[in-house]
Amino acid sequence: MSEMLIPRTPSAHNYQLLIKNMLYTPMVNNPDQEIVYRHHYRGTYRDLRERVCRLASVLTGLGVKPGDTVAVMDWDSHRYLEMFFAVPMIGAVLHTINVRLSPEQILYTIDHAEDDVLFVNSEFLPILEQIRGRIDLVRTYVLIADEPCDAHTVKFAGEYEQLLAQAASHFDFPDLDENTRATTFYTTGTTGLPKGVYFSHRQLVMHTMGLLAMLGSVVGHGGFRRDDVYMPMTPMFHVHAWGIPYVATMLGVKQVYPGRYSPDLLLELKEKEQVTFSHCVPTIMHMLLKHPHADQMDLSGWKLIIGGAAMSRTLCLDALSRGIDVFTGYGMSETCPIITISQLTPGMLALSPEEQAMIRCRTGLSLPLVELRVADSTLQEQPWDGKSSGEIVVRAPWLSQGYLKDHKASERLWDGGYLHTGDVAVRDEKGYVRITDRTKDVIKVAGEWISSLELEDIVAHHHAVAEVAVIGQPDEKWGERPLVLVMAKPGEQANEKEIAHHLRQYADKGVVSKHVVLARVRLVEAIDKTSVGKINKVALREKYL
Amino acid sequence: MSEMLIPRTPSAHNYQLLIKNMLYTPMVNNPDQEIVYRHHYRGTYRDLRERVCRLASVLTGLGVKPGDTVAVMDWDSHRYLEMFFAVPMIGAVLHTINVRLSPEQILYTIDHAEDDVLFVNSEFLPILEQIRGRIDLVRTYVLIADEPCDAHTVKFAGEYEQLLAQAASHFDFPDLDENTRATTFYTTGTTGLPKGVYFSHRQLVMHTMGLLAMLGSVVGHGGFRRDDVYMPMTPMFHVHAWGIPYVATMLGVKQVYPGRYSPDLLLELKEKEQVTFSHCVPTIMHMLLKHPHADQMDLSGWKLIIGGAAMSRTLCLDALSRGIDVFTGYGMSETCPIITISQLTPGMLALSPEEQAMIRCRTGLSLPLVELRVADSTLQEQPWDGKSSGEIVVRAPWLSQGYLKDHKASERLWDGGYLHTGDVAVRDEKGYVRITDRTKDVIKVAGEWISSLELEDIVAHHHAVAEVAVIGQPDEKWGERPLVLVMAKPGEQANEKEIAHHLRQYADKGVVSKHVVLARVRLVEAIDKTSVGKINKVALREKYL
Repeated sequence: MSEMLIPRTPSAHNYQLLIKNMLYTPMVNNPDQEIVYRHHYRGTYRDLRERVCRLASVLTGLGVKPGDTVAVMDWDSHRYLEMFFAVPMIGAVLHTINVRLSPEQILYTIDHAEDDVLFVNSEFLPILEQIRGRIDLVRTYVLIADEPCDAHTVKFAGEYEQLLAQAASHFDFPDLDENTRATTFYTTGTTGLPKGVYFSHRQLVMHTMGLLAMLGSVVGHGGFRRDDVYMPMTPMFHVHAWGIPYVATMLGVKQVYPGRYSPDLLLELKEKEQVTFSHCVPTIMHMLLKHPHADQMDLSGWKLIIGGAAMSRTLCLDALSRGIDVFTGYGMSETCPIITISQLTPGMLALSPEEQAMIRCRTGLSLPLVELRVADSTLQEQPWDGKSSGEIVVRAPWLSQGYLKDHKASERLWDGGYLHTGDVAVRDEKGYVRITDRTKDVIKVAGEWISSLELEDIVAHHHAVAEVAVIGQPDEKWGERPLVLVMAKPGEQANEKEIAHHLRQYADKGVVSKHVVLARVRLVEAIDKTSVGKINKVALREKYL
Repeated sequence: MSEMLIPRTPSAHNYQLLIKNMLYTPMVNNPDQEIVYRHHYRGTYRDLRERVCRLASVLTGLGVKPGDTVAVMDWDSHRYLEMFFAVPMIGAVLHTINVRLSPEQILYTIDHAEDDVLFVNSEFLPILEQIRGRIDLVRTYVLIADEPCDAHTVKFAGEYEQLLAQAASHFDFPDLDENTRATTFYTTGTTGLPKGVYFSHRQLVMHTMGLLAMLGSVVGHGGFRRDDVYMPMTPMFHVHAWGIPYVATMLGVKQVYPGRYSPDLLLELKEKEQVTFSHCVPTIMHMLLKHPHADQMDLSGWKLIIGGAAMSRTLCLDALSRGIDVFTGYGMSETCPIITISQLTPGMLALSPEEQAMIRCRTGLSLPLVELRVADSTLQEQPWDGKSSGEIVVRAPWLSQGYLKDHKASERLWDGGYLHTGDVAVRDEKGYVRITDRTKDVIKVAGEWISSLELEDIVAHHHAVAEVAVIGQPDEKWGERPLVLVMAKPGEQANEKEIAHHLRQYADKGVVSKHVVLARVRLVEAIDKTSVGKINKVALREKYL
């Protein structure tokens, strides 16, 4: 085959897909555009370029070499954006520490990722002080401080802004191999220890290009273009805030970093900076809509990608009634993350809010270059009939090649040459994917698959129910039976029998399998959650089975 | 460095940037969208997929193997689009023959590219009959016929539609190396024999992604999105019609292939199929605007990329007055081709047509991932002041690595690790590039660079001038002096002295260098052109110096 490969002129530049190359056009086409951090910082893209150079000078001054790992504990900020670029651009790996993990888990990820340098916001010093004695490899600490900093015992090489001010403002970034690792972070998952996921320069560039194409080509809603104002509302430590800060930078749009996600601050920045494009989990959107300030604000036209968890139809309708353009983005840490978006056609935009919500809550259409299959157990594609379910498996230019130092889990992830999402879905004749469950959360009753998510959705409609989780209880006769765990609304009298009856009514109407008559309902004090707020079915199974 | 490269899970799919991967999303998201060829064919994207499979079956049935070359002589059509995909997707190379070359030059390119199979439209049989006896390597000929075909002496393996009808409708396309050569074609240039340029799968995918990002992110004009209707008006044999059929296919938009470029047909299709996005050379736009049918048509909103030659301000204003959204695309065969587009900001769209024309006629802003420099002779970047001129040199993910079997020319093209365009330009503080001349067409008078294009532009404004070309005449005292070759308008009395005076007036006003007083004007019968209609300065120099 080698004779078919294109002959390269020795002097021809072998162009690599590198993070530094994403900076050419925004710096050219929009150098005076703004980047804002809360009330603390307001700079331009010109400043971004200079600060990325200064940060690179600081890093190499601290002895950071290609292949070293630079870890960060910070709130979402312009600094985090600068690290998104400068750290991989010198050939080092950026470890974005999940600050919501427990101190012990944070210690584990710092050790596991073999961090060499740690940038830490003064607000996280209490965590660091707890674990610092047990950190083995970190040789240099850099302080990040929005405010003058209290007494502490850590010996810092310096403070971020001071170090930048003293550093050289020019840096010649090397031409790396595009497969050089650029970033690492840890997925919390629901089982065992956090797992390290990693991405190369090429993967981050291709994810950016795929999103640019998907969000640029759509018509009538949901576009992300050069006149937008961007504010992320998912944390930068988690899958690079879904990779969208890279997209925003390549577009050269105004960017607003809010730091923490207090609804007051988010709504204030949204209004003051005229934000038009954001992304968040359903909980954040719910919080914003319920906030008293939201009532007096014009939220119409705000484009909002919802991901991380399924958006309920009620929440979607609530947002639509406020004029917010909400739609679903889907993916997972291992997929960089976005592989589908629930974009609507102009025809669909003429539908009623209820009909639109059906589509906007779906998992969506696959992005350019993504080969997505709703597959049976032999990886063959299921019919596109909106009914035949299978696991979502995928190939794309931006999927993680595996988990850091965990060969077995990597092999499982890539079984058969497709990345296994573990999500069960159906696909309709228009190509829209709709997740019905997690593979491991499907309940097999008398040989029939019942979606635990579907049951949860039905039970959640009962007036007395605050939260619900459904798990499969092993059963000699039926294989499994659904166990419905219910947390009642404060002040409401939830009744197990009544809820079982409520569920059965849906079976009588043919909405769910008649096997749900076998469901057992149990009232509980609380539903266990993971560190990112998802229902922790592993913990629930341990507790209640 | 190898330890920094990302560890690959053995079973993980090593995703390659392949032409076949561009088909996933249009086939998913818009399977019923139309592809039209004149009045002869109307199919869907579903049909495209099936026909690409059938064509692949035909090719392998004819014994085409990976690395073989399949040549095409056809008008722009749905068939050509099918070949854009099927030929590279089986690992073969598509040679798009420039049917405007002389039969001798066509023979040269068929031999030089080592074509194995030749698809030929019956309208080109007279050319083929002339050279067939001297074609060495082609072992199989396939006929393309829009109409029943006249007698001929070529022994064909079959006719395109008949072969497709008999072939298998499913094909498993291989996972190739992304650096596999996908296409080859010949640039006519102005010197010597045609040169073969070639592109890999990866380069064509990246050019498509770059254009999608550039044309999707723009606001207020010039966008190419999912509701557009596409009709190319630059030939598919020349740099894959600027690569835009690939972009259109990935968008899943309606595509209209006109075959030949008669203004009647183009205007008819534009109206009937409601075309909204096209691209052409200035001559074609001029022809369309001057056509009597154009007066009765509503051309407003037609997005038109102009390239191949500079668009004059007069022509631009003429198009703008008809509501056409014209703007410049820039590149060359060696750059795949597009590297800049003269997009306007919403603020610029509020300017007067005259002011807008200044911007729309510029070379433009560079595309995402493109590193473009207006460089001095040491490849250092010139100041962005709209005055300091230098050569445009470039790095991008989609540039040809060189010329086929021409090592020396490849080395010259890539001197110093940047692709040399041979275009002299300035860049303004907003990043817009404006070409002022070709490096080899700049005239050095008393050590000062004078742009031959600028002088041509001034002389062309003289009422008696039909065509003009300026070349540098060696001069002992001054180094060079401009020689102005003028072809008079029919019926006009052009006068050499008067034209020299006209030129001098501009020097008096300070518009051009005062050295133009040294210019000599000479009336000629005709200005020599290349096969693609550009002024052939090499021929002019041979003739007049």
